[in-house]
Amino acid sequence: MSQEGLTEAYGWAARDSSGILSPLHFTRRANGDTDITIKILYCGICHSDFHMLKNDHGISIYPLVPGHEIVGEVTKVGRRVTKFKVGDVAGVGGIVGTCGTCSNCTQGLETYCPKMILTSSSHYHDGSITYGGFSDNFVVDEHFAVTIPESMPLHATAPLLCAGITVYSPMLHHGLCRPGQHLGVVGLGGLGHLAVKFAKAFGMKVTVISTSSRKKEEAIERLGVDSFLLSHQQQQLQDATGTMDGIIDTVSAPHSVYPLVGLLKTGGNLILVGAPAASSPELPSLPLIMGRKSISGSAGGGMRETQEMIEFAAKHNISADVEVIPMDYVNTAMGRLVNNDVQYRFVIDVANTLDTPRTN
Amino acid sequence: MSQEGLTEAYGWAARDSSGILSPLHFTRRANGDTDITIKILYCGICHSDFHMLKNDHGISIYPLVPGHEIVGEVTKVGRRVTKFKVGDVAGVGGIVGTCGTCSNCTQGLETYCPKMILTSSSHYHDGSITYGGFSDNFVVDEHFAVTIPESMPLHATAPLLCAGITVYSPMLHHGLCRPGQHLGVVGLGGLGHLAVKFAKAFGMKVTVISTSSRKKEEAIERLGVDSFLLSHQQQQLQDATGTMDGIIDTVSAPHSVYPLVGLLKTGGNLILVGAPAASSPELPSLPLIMGRKSISGSAGGGMRETQEMIEFAAKHNISADVEVIPMDYVNTAMGRLVNNDVQYRFVIDVANTLDTPRTN
Repeated sequence: MSQEGLTEAYGWAARDSSGILSPLHFTRRANGDTDITIKILYCGICHSDFHMLKNDHGISIYPLVPGHEIVGEVTKVGRRVTKFKVGDVAGVGGIVGTCGTCSNCTQGLETYCPKMILTSSSHYHDGSITYGGFSDNFVVDEHFAVTIPESMPLHATAPLLCAGITVYSPMLHHGLCRPGQHLGVVGLGGLGHLAVKFAKAFGMKVTVISTSSRKKEEAIERLGVDSFLLSHQQQQLQDATGTMDGIIDTVSAPHSVYPLVGLLKTGGNLILVGAPAASSPELPSLPLIMGRKSISGSAGGGMRETQEMIEFAAKHNISADVEVIPMDYVNTAMGRLVNNDVQYRFVIDVANTLDTPRTN
Repeated sequence: MSQEGLTEAYGWAARDSSGILSPLHFTRRANGDTDITIKILYCGICHSDFHMLKNDHGISIYPLVPGHEIVGEVTKVGRRVTKFKVGDVAGVGGIVGTCGTCSNCTQGLETYCPKMILTSSSHYHDGSITYGGFSDNFVVDEHFAVTIPESMPLHATAPLLCAGITVYSPMLHHGLCRPGQHLGVVGLGGLGHLAVKFAKAFGMKVTVISTSSRKKEEAIERLGVDSFLLSHQQQQLQDATGTMDGIIDTVSAPHSVYPLVGLLKTGGNLILVGAPAASSPELPSLPLIMGRKSISGSAGGGMRETQEMIEFAAKHNISADVEVIPMDYVNTAMGRLVNNDVQYRFVIDVANTLDTPRTN
């Protein structure tokens, strides 16, 4: 029986840190005055979904419905909603709430609010648990949803809500978005391939730095990158010393940053966006000092910037390269994700493959 | 006997990595068309002089005349010199030559030129060895000298040529120079006390972070810093979490940067200017990512910026707090320097205390 006013939902959840997903009926909060309800069409799979499923950060709440790259159709709007009407396409990324009053919030830097509420496995303002987008619907305050032009390929737009904004935001913030600049992109996965696409749209020269030689042809011939460096080939790195204005490092696995800092021009910036593993590398103090260089970090982007990113992507025909999968393939997909066996993002075709039985 | 055209000079030099200084007659190059010759009045003592004396970087050339915070009177100008006339006061800092054509040079970032020539213990363009300012005179291309208003206290201006520009340049470059911003200064020595003075002149709030409680009263009452944190007092650091726009870290001794990164606001920048010891600390990847923070390095500043810094200092009555010493005190001074027993910079009164005997 449904509780008064709550929103019935159905999706796939992990029950424990095995991370194995299976169907679950659950409830979301009622659609409030500033909320919209979305019928989920597509949901991307991010590496951080895997870490949350396995409780790698020690903060997971079970049952856990993952998914924070959500695109869907608006089916209900609260009476104070202004940005959306029923039938619009909306997108939701990694966060669904903040304090709204701190200096980060007032500057549009919602992802840095200390009280930021994750889309999945967090406590919402009312104490309820947040459940992500591996499900049929979603209820969200309109502030944390962006409008998506219907002309965009919706399945391939879903990954922009997390992977896309994660690389776009630091590029804009650090001025790495000007024609003729040279950007290095470390790791050619979900984040990396979108960094390449944004950089090319900005008119930049792009070099991919990867551990995997099998990605070279793809990177150059299909994604149009200008050069490709194998990170274990000392001579290739040596030849590229001091050539890059900035580098977006998307790799979470432990790796030294000394060779990367060496690739930067004077004043260049190495930007870390891959949540790091337990062990951190050494801080390259002397190369930073001798080259006026920086190492920066970045975590997603605010809502205003996410909307701008979507509009930039629409204008420049940028979307993710995805493998669309049915919902009942998610456990297999998680296994492949861990082995980097995807070009470049899994996206679940939620609307067409999630069978939603009625509750009794 | 003097060689044809060369400039006779006399100063104090180390003969080997004992670093012990004693008098030495030597020659500098002839004053060329774009050179000026300076009668040295004052020369500051920088920590890096000590490291060069001891060959700590493995690049020292003996006999070694240290000193790269030089203020003196122009006694000769080459026929193509435009900035100086005889009788002017000139200053020379850490470098005396570059390639002049690389992208760093053309942007006025001379200290980042790969062919940069140090004021002491380097090979000049003509193959001669450079000798520093612990001596009676100096010959330098006018490009690497700045003009100093005679109204400035010349003894206390000498340290601006290295310590001053080292902290001023990154503050300007990273926009840490606006009224109301909050700057942390780690280490209250030669560099740190000048960072405090520039920051106060910019209208910033300043917090000193130090290992030494005995510096607190001095910092607050005389230098006018707004607050003082003891770096080993966890509670003090905790209370200041997320309050600083930027931090200038002047400390060379090994130390973790995690506590410092924690003091930064979202988007804040920790700037390293102290040449680090052999071992580097851990890169705080996760705090950088979660706070959109940066760690940057900086090494001195270009000649144009050094001139601007001198003019800013003159306008705001900024000079170093110094202990003026006679030349024959330098060995004692070096010992005290290593023990941080100086407030805040030794400056040699060269003109009045270096007895210059004639050669036979």
